[in-house]
Amino acid sequence: MSSYPISDRNQVRRVAKRGHYDRETVYPILDAARHCHLGFSVEGQPFVIPTLFGREGDKLYIHGAVQSRMLEHLEKAPQACLTVTHIDGLVLARSAFHHSMNYRSVVAFGKLKKIGGNAAKNHALKVISDHLLPGRWEECREPSENELKATTVLEMEIEQASAKIRTGGPVDAPADYELPIWAGVLPYHFHIGDPQADEQLSPEIPLSESVRSSFQ
Amino acid sequence: MSSYPISDRNQVRRVAKRGHYDRETVYPILDAARHCHLGFSVEGQPFVIPTLFGREGDKLYIHGAVQSRMLEHLEKAPQACLTVTHIDGLVLARSAFHHSMNYRSVVAFGKLKKIGGNAAKNHALKVISDHLLPGRWEECREPSENELKATTVLEMEIEQASAKIRTGGPVDAPADYELPIWAGVLPYHFHIGDPQADEQLSPEIPLSESVRSSFQ
Repeated sequence: MSSYPISDRNQVRRVAKRGHYDRETVYPILDAARHCHLGFSVEGQPFVIPTLFGREGDKLYIHGAVQSRMLEHLEKAPQACLTVTHIDGLVLARSAFHHSMNYRSVVAFGKLKKIGGNAAKNHALKVISDHLLPGRWEECREPSENELKATTVLEMEIEQASAKIRTGGPVDAPADYELPIWAGVLPYHFHIGDPQADEQLSPEIPLSESVRSSFQ
Repeated sequence: MSSYPISDRNQVRRVAKRGHYDRETVYPILDAARHCHLGFSVEGQPFVIPTLFGREGDKLYIHGAVQSRMLEHLEKAPQACLTVTHIDGLVLARSAFHHSMNYRSVVAFGKLKKIGGNAAKNHALKVISDHLLPGRWEECREPSENELKATTVLEMEIEQASAKIRTGGPVDAPADYELPIWAGVLPYHFHIGDPQADEQLSPEIPLSESVRSSFQ
């Protein structure tokens, strides 16, 4: 897969060797994220909103994160930044200065565009649903025409992106290796817990396949 | 504790009943976050950068997230937005439309300001360190004068903030409760794994107290 063009906007500057610009690195980091942080500006004021998303090639779909007041503004200033971050561990060095995190992040730039038409919206919502829980879309009732009309779905085609990755243990200043201080990594883990059935769920209804396969 | 002033900027509009503006709700959500997403604009282009932070009252301290090119710009346009999000679970409804997430998030607004002077920087870095791993600062070598000089530390005093919280099971359209579809919540959990000692760590050096108490 090819790389994104590099410019001032997406070039990784702090610890440049941690930067990656190829889709082969960027896509899996996006796909493993359960949510993103979407940034946009309204008259110079930045907003950062957590939201769900889905990816299809270079297209990112976002659902319902942006209020109508902001949507109006977006037509004038559609520039956005969509960021996902996985924190994999806390890196504990012998000196405060060399403490760090292990992480995988992607910062993607593009323009937000409202998706019009129920068929296109329905498709984008399925992509978001598949991103969150593969197979769930087929199990539940699909959106009605009215529900689709009431839903705002946005698209951001990635113009540029960068991934940034840190792995491994602490890197201390040479003299500090003598210090009698514990150093290493505290790994951060994420997991899905046991599904909790809705109180109103009839006990005959079995756990659905999408849910079963997500936590096993 | 008092509440933040409410204006267009921080008012929660989508599902307004989920919005909170009091420090009693905002502070614990900030304090439980292991990282944040910092948003700022450079000539109309929003940037969203994951970074570490610490809190002291209404002051948020950020370390090393912003490149010098951006720092220059920040003096002209210091407006920022700092967001933290905890995703607590995926809410699976009987209809695609009513799927949701359980979460706790805070969106905080203020102006970024560079912290000058080694003593003030050292203090802010300790606040960040205490936020990540209480007690670690006292265990490791403190920053030298030169390390402090080489470190950029920013401060953002919260001018306004809002918290948004969703809890509980799915809320379906009345007719959908008849559908034979599993509905409920998939809880998302975070945990700290077993500490991994640095390969160069002498085996006599015991696990430090801050690390021990973090995962037990």
